[in-house]
Amino acid sequence: MIIDGKKLSQMIIEDLKEERKKIAGKIRLAAVLIGNDPASLSFVKQKKKVGEKIGVELRLYQYATTIKTKELRHQVGKLCRLSTNKGLIVQLPLPSSINTQSVLNAILPLKDVDVLSEKNLGAFFTGRLPILPPVVAAIRFILEKYKISLEGKNVLIIGRGRLVGKPALIWCVNQRATVTEANQKTKNLPELMKKADVIITSAGKPNLVKGDLVKPGVIIFDAAVMTEKGKLRGDCDLNSLQKKAQLITPVPGGLGPLTVAFLYVNLLELTKRQR
Amino acid sequence: MIIDGKKLSQMIIEDLKEERKKIAGKIRLAAVLIGNDPASLSFVKQKKKVGEKIGVELRLYQYATTIKTKELRHQVGKLCRLSTNKGLIVQLPLPSSINTQSVLNAILPLKDVDVLSEKNLGAFFTGRLPILPPVVAAIRFILEKYKISLEGKNVLIIGRGRLVGKPALIWCVNQRATVTEANQKTKNLPELMKKADVIITSAGKPNLVKGDLVKPGVIIFDAAVMTEKGKLRGDCDLNSLQKKAQLITPVPGGLGPLTVAFLYVNLLELTKRQR
Repeated sequence: MIIDGKKLSQMIIEDLKEERKKIAGKIRLAAVLIGNDPASLSFVKQKKKVGEKIGVELRLYQYATTIKTKELRHQVGKLCRLSTNKGLIVQLPLPSSINTQSVLNAILPLKDVDVLSEKNLGAFFTGRLPILPPVVAAIRFILEKYKISLEGKNVLIIGRGRLVGKPALIWCVNQRATVTEANQKTKNLPELMKKADVIITSAGKPNLVKGDLVKPGVIIFDAAVMTEKGKLRGDCDLNSLQKKAQLITPVPGGLGPLTVAFLYVNLLELTKRQR
Repeated sequence: MIIDGKKLSQMIIEDLKEERKKIAGKIRLAAVLIGNDPASLSFVKQKKKVGEKIGVELRLYQYATTIKTKELRHQVGKLCRLSTNKGLIVQLPLPSSINTQSVLNAILPLKDVDVLSEKNLGAFFTGRLPILPPVVAAIRFILEKYKISLEGKNVLIIGRGRLVGKPALIWCVNQRATVTEANQKTKNLPELMKKADVIITSAGKPNLVKGDLVKPGVIIFDAAVMTEKGKLRGDCDLNSLQKKAQLITPVPGGLGPLTVAFLYVNLLELTKRQR
């Protein structure tokens, strides 16, 4: 079955509208963007649209690509201290001239809705953070909706990035899954795919995961996002997989919209904790 | 080959003696112990002995098992603020009445030589911490000594505990290994063992890893520590493994002494950063 992430996200957005009404005062999400990469701008726009539906303003703070790490840290810190900014996101990737983690560490933990600062990562690592990284929250949501437990399951995570691979790894281990983390240096990927009950992929390689490589009934979360000829693409060949997989999230329209919805779940949760 | 951890640790201790001489003033390691469990006391004593060799005082701070989380946090914070205490360790496990992570979070990051506070875990997670969790440092030391790179290797980690499994997982992923994390719920452990180039085990199950279960030339780090009839035991059957494994760390006398040595490597490193 192909997961309709758009439809599921709309349900969450409806709940968020109600939730938002219970919170008095202005709620703003600060979005920091360096330069004006069209893909990044389009992602920010999508987030802004969802914010408007919920009753939250996303305010874009744009800086030139010449900005230095130190200055950007300073700006992020300043934006976090504005009490109307209830959350702050830094649109990734940043230019290679900037020390990304250093900038992310300047986000105040209580405003770090993306769970990217080291302080929040540490609390997430020990299972003590009240929010989850948005993409992990989206995965959990789908698993819970279909009453699937990861305990004892073979989970394969392809990719070890900051936004998907590493947080998914930690979370799946905390769920007592048997988790394998594969990357570009992995030699036996086909064999690992064949054994996996669940695959979470964010490699950025179209058609990396195909029907003849996986076992029947597999659950696939495609968290890769590439732009190919102006269109979004994931790691999966949906055609060959849709009959073989028990569940699969497509790109676009799968984890993407859900991840944005859970960004706002996190924002409202942290807003409540700021009083 | 069986690794002689005792001998290797003595080399490190010799280096530490020289290193210590370059640092002026008193260096003390505070060790917090709750109750008086004989095994815990014996571990603390071993650490104290090594400290004496290096020229560092380990001072034991013992509290009754009736102490509450909040009070213990307060004590840990107070001990950290004494400038002579250059590092602080909490001997684990703590009684179940105490919130362990909450206590560990009271250790100041610059004095957290065991890398157990969330703040240090977060920095370790992103690869930015200047020290490594001691057992990970011991594993890295052995790998470097024998010129073994983990990149592209199949690493199996058995156990997902705070001291070994989880930090080893993160570190091996950061080394671009293909890492599988197995636990009590894992169904295909024999198959995973057979495929592993490297096994890091901390399950606490004697004879879990045996010669007929692994592939020839495997590298095994036994990080389990149990007391059986007053003797230390690990997860491995050394008899059947010593011919089959390329390298294996025995228990006792393997990772244990090295881990203690690297505790002091961390202490001196953090001491230098406290000026």
